[in-house]
Amino acid sequence: MRAVLLHGAHDVRVDEVTKPQIVEDGDAIIKLAAACVCGSDLWAYRGIDPITTPISVGHEYCGVVQEVGPSVKNVKPGDFVVGSFFASDNTCEICRSGYQSSCLDRRPMGAENCQAEYLRVPLADGTLVATPTMPDPDLIPSLLAASDVLGTGWFAAKAAEVGPGKAVAVIGDGAVGLLAVLSAKLLGADRIIAMSRHESRQKLAREFGATDIVAERGDEGVARIKALTGGLGVHSALEAVGTQESMMQAIRATRQGGHVGYVGVSHDVSLPGLELFFSHVHLHGGPAPVRDYLPELIERIMKREINPGRVFDLELPFDDAAEAYRAMDERRAIKALLRF
Amino acid sequence: MRAVLLHGAHDVRVDEVTKPQIVEDGDAIIKLAAACVCGSDLWAYRGIDPITTPISVGHEYCGVVQEVGPSVKNVKPGDFVVGSFFASDNTCEICRSGYQSSCLDRRPMGAENCQAEYLRVPLADGTLVATPTMPDPDLIPSLLAASDVLGTGWFAAKAAEVGPGKAVAVIGDGAVGLLAVLSAKLLGADRIIAMSRHESRQKLAREFGATDIVAERGDEGVARIKALTGGLGVHSALEAVGTQESMMQAIRATRQGGHVGYVGVSHDVSLPGLELFFSHVHLHGGPAPVRDYLPELIERIMKREINPGRVFDLELPFDDAAEAYRAMDERRAIKALLRF
Repeated sequence: MRAVLLHGAHDVRVDEVTKPQIVEDGDAIIKLAAACVCGSDLWAYRGIDPITTPISVGHEYCGVVQEVGPSVKNVKPGDFVVGSFFASDNTCEICRSGYQSSCLDRRPMGAENCQAEYLRVPLADGTLVATPTMPDPDLIPSLLAASDVLGTGWFAAKAAEVGPGKAVAVIGDGAVGLLAVLSAKLLGADRIIAMSRHESRQKLAREFGATDIVAERGDEGVARIKALTGGLGVHSALEAVGTQESMMQAIRATRQGGHVGYVGVSHDVSLPGLELFFSHVHLHGGPAPVRDYLPELIERIMKREINPGRVFDLELPFDDAAEAYRAMDERRAIKALLRF
Repeated sequence: MRAVLLHGAHDVRVDEVTKPQIVEDGDAIIKLAAACVCGSDLWAYRGIDPITTPISVGHEYCGVVQEVGPSVKNVKPGDFVVGSFFASDNTCEICRSGYQSSCLDRRPMGAENCQAEYLRVPLADGTLVATPTMPDPDLIPSLLAASDVLGTGWFAAKAAEVGPGKAVAVIGDGAVGLLAVLSAKLLGADRIIAMSRHESRQKLAREFGATDIVAERGDEGVARIKALTGGLGVHSALEAVGTQESMMQAIRATRQGGHVGYVGVSHDVSLPGLELFFSHVHLHGGPAPVRDYLPELIERIMKREINPGRVFDLELPFDDAAEAYRAMDERRAIKALLRF
């Protein structure tokens, strides 16, 4: 089968590799409906770690079950399924508390190859959620978005306790940030301030429900948010970048007693204790427990209540994966979909 | 009147100073029922900042109203009142959301002199809570504890969402930590693990409701807590120290999805973003909004449901304030009460 492999920094190739097989009794093999590139894949693409042997990238997936291991009960061949970037048993105490991305037996799907024609999913019973019917082809981008970026934006909003009557700021205008806007809207936020300086992203943010756009960053951005919220700051800040600047911006834009939901994977972030202490904010985040949200998100997509697939502003044939990475790296595309 | 003044590091004196007067229309003057030393007063006592002119210390108080300014409506001369370490208007949007210690017009009571015979309390209507009747003298220590250490321990437990069925760890065995144990018990925690290596404090922790004592610290302490909680860690960690070690111990002792409530004033704390991200904990804390809790805490004390005054294990005449500081500095006393 064909699969994307990263041979070195900025060196993406589509190679012929062996099709995955059932290894554990709980595995499923799925034929992927499409593949996509995540903003977080760009860290490896840009060479954050040296690459000595070709590595797989990607961790988002949806498609049709081809084969299941002997212990699998919840999905069967022919089902269209969506999973999350961590496979999880969905039965351990941590899963049952709603934190499947910290499952005691979790398996990072980045270790498999999700940018490929077929994928092995371990812990299939706990991980995969089947759609009630075979989705129309135009729903594939949205279902693929549910696998990570939608579920992650949703978690940011949940972690920041977004709800009716609340003012929300979203820091980050990548796919996750934009879908955090959509999530805040769905959860009933009164006012949604999107921070973005890119016209196409501002436009999509407004389409998803943003009521205000702030183009300024850092202290200036915080001052603008305070000015928009009676000097107090927002009730909920959703952080979807993962840098020191974005984290401090989220904390400083939040009023005392408010909530910061952070989902950008931290890179060289160090939070000053005393400032955090007097900020009086609630802080929660981490890898989104997307599995917990999949049933609800899939239902909303299948009913066409939401269209998170709008974050894919570039579609390319699978063999053009290298261009998909280049376009995202150069911020020419928000998110790239690869069609087989 | 007599007042404690800090003349330099380790140089505590009781001086004759001018009695405070009504300055603002909303002020009240109260005759203090007793005075006490807070663990956080020891930072100044130990000379964290150079002292060039005698400074006041302390921020805990209760006593009888002597005089009120012309705009004061909620308390009157003769009322026995308790207030918190931040005076607050209790009407602004931040106060109304339950964060009076971040009141938009807050006044640090440390700027007045709470270790003195009389005290000026600004924003008296918002700040002071009167007891329903004149308390018996033996309740004074508990009411004085409500002013800070009890309310702060209570906030730690609230911030960490302590409740029935939960396992709780308390980091810190000072008065706040011990009263965090009492708070966790009141809030229905199933299991309360107190971290302490001092016999007298362990004993009081058990009296307040601790079910387990862990004497180990750092990684060893975390390992002990995990061993006591099925390998997962506690649902709620209450941090009452404010150092890097205690914060990391609290975060690492908490299970994924659990809550850390931190009330120890941060000193040189810097939280590593990536570890926090994957810890999946909720983090909340800061200066306790004691004002919000005073009505409930005062009621429980007046009904003798709780006896937080037990943290005072040293009582001295007011003129012996220097010995009170020495005893706390040398950890010979948990908390010292000064009687006039």
